[in-house]
Amino acid sequence: MIHVRHAESADAGLLLQLIREMGNQERMPVFTSEERLLKDGFGPEPKFHGFIAQDGMLVAGYALAFDCYSSFQGSGLFLEDLFVRGEFRGKGVGKALLSHVTSKAIDLGCFGIMLNVLDWNEPALRFFERAGASVLSERKTLCLMPESLEDTARFNFASLTT
Amino acid sequence: MIHVRHAESADAGLLLQLIREMGNQERMPVFTSEERLLKDGFGPEPKFHGFIAQDGMLVAGYALAFDCYSSFQGSGLFLEDLFVRGEFRGKGVGKALLSHVTSKAIDLGCFGIMLNVLDWNEPALRFFERAGASVLSERKTLCLMPESLEDTARFNFASLTT
Repeated sequence: MIHVRHAESADAGLLLQLIREMGNQERMPVFTSEERLLKDGFGPEPKFHGFIAQDGMLVAGYALAFDCYSSFQGSGLFLEDLFVRGEFRGKGVGKALLSHVTSKAIDLGCFGIMLNVLDWNEPALRFFERAGASVLSERKTLCLMPESLEDTARFNFASLTT
Repeated sequence: MIHVRHAESADAGLLLQLIREMGNQERMPVFTSEERLLKDGFGPEPKFHGFIAQDGMLVAGYALAFDCYSSFQGSGLFLEDLFVRGEFRGKGVGKALLSHVTSKAIDLGCFGIMLNVLDWNEPALRFFERAGASVLSERKTLCLMPESLEDTARFNFASLTT
């Protein structure tokens, strides 16, 4: 029996393990720690919503989302991660997780859920499209990393008036 | 003289006007109101950071960003909008706005700034690439809108245990 629960502070170590497994799958390095997840997810001002999926007593996957904002549409949720461990695939775990993230989005009055999918991850693309997601093909995603931040911030720092 | 200030509650009406101008430029409909911007931006738990650029006493543009979260990297800023009014382009207003958003990101200890650019907006792409931004070309952006949310939430609602 698959069920989903909200992550709690005692899950910080488990979340870190699951995030590392997700990083392996996505071929991306993971730079976080149990301490940071504990502070960011379960402190006085949580920065994300965590969901843990179980198959009975066994941990089958997780989802992580944060509050995003559209100037045109108001509050939304951004689904940062949705991950199902290999041995639990094909059992509806991903659907159960997505269902609970969408319930959260409805509770929060969100305009919708935004997410990124890596273009080589065909199963993920098909999964979200079956769930009704639209690909916003006009949008490119960009990132300004720290070395650029420093340079850009210096450009005009003196003009900050408030 | 270009300067940038943090938006305040008295700017909600001005922000709405600027957001509508941005919507016109991006060919996107705007579904928000002064009341919503006031509540979401300037209440006890602000959902975004607003920045107003002025050329002397004249309003030249704005930027709007929200706190985002990477499970792999921690806290970030998502730059949702950066807009310069037509008559103020070529004066460094965009750079001044981006400079202050990056200063904010550094103050907040962010791993970086994420943003989307529409693929037909070549000037915006060039602007952000000159500022050091990388295009994450593997990422597709998807959106689950309300009608899909309802269907997806119903799928497995009964299994939510906490």
